[in-house]
Amino acid sequence: MQIERIQFQMHGDSRGALIALEQERNVPFKIRRVYYLFGTKGGVHRGQHAHRHLSQLAVTLRGSVTFLLDDGSGPVHVVLDDPAQGLLLQRMVWHEMYDFSEDCVLMVLADHLYDPADYITDYDEFLREIDGGLRVEGMAACPGR
Amino acid sequence: MQIERIQFQMHGDSRGALIALEQERNVPFKIRRVYYLFGTKGGVHRGQHAHRHLSQLAVTLRGSVTFLLDDGSGPVHVVLDDPAQGLLLQRMVWHEMYDFSEDCVLMVLADHLYDPADYITDYDEFLREIDGGLRVEGMAACPGR
Repeated sequence: MQIERIQFQMHGDSRGALIALEQERNVPFKIRRVYYLFGTKGGVHRGQHAHRHLSQLAVTLRGSVTFLLDDGSGPVHVVLDDPAQGLLLQRMVWHEMYDFSEDCVLMVLADHLYDPADYITDYDEFLREIDGGLRVEGMAACPGR
Repeated sequence: MQIERIQFQMHGDSRGALIALEQERNVPFKIRRVYYLFGTKGGVHRGQHAHRHLSQLAVTLRGSVTFLLDDGSGPVHVVLDDPAQGLLLQRMVWHEMYDFSEDCVLMVLADHLYDPADYITDYDEFLREIDGGLRVEGMAACPGR
């Protein structure tokens, strides 16, 4: 699968750093929700779901974490350890986070408010919905049906 | 002046913590911009301005920082050191940040995109605009003028 990273401009000088994320500018959606994870213990896996509709952008503001991403074609592992780099989490991508550093602060911007109905937490169900989606798209692209 | 803090619910367990900020729910405005400061050197003062229109919400995701807030009635100092607590920065409040801890990650949510014309960076000008605002309000409240 294609990994989409966004590089942010670092504003700052010897006094310190500032990075600004703006909706529909360097963030490719409207920001409606911001959440952050911290104090995550070693050995913990978080995430382990996909979203039917939600788009998200993840940034490690401090420390590092590894993402497992899977659009149905198999897992890809991505290390996120740069406050100036965002990782786009598109809809219908299974994702897990692991190998949190002790000091990791992971911030995620999302384009919708929390909706439990948008979560797919079972991997087999995720694969079924991808297959279903592809079949529907295939039919829609076939004239006369 | 009145200090407005917002306490956030901490979602999490022994595996780690998660806090979610949602626009027009526990954030009292639409989130259009998110910025973060990190790597700030000791002894540095940042901010040192007021906004004519912008509303903001500041949260220290890690470490601590002290805010100086002044609505024209004199400075108030507020220590921010809790990822579950937001400090509301209303329009027309002069603010400075100082005493950043070495590990401080300060995140700020804002209700508008960056607009240099919205900044007042001169304290005397800030006081003049507050006085002007009060006088205009006073005139507007006076019928027949």
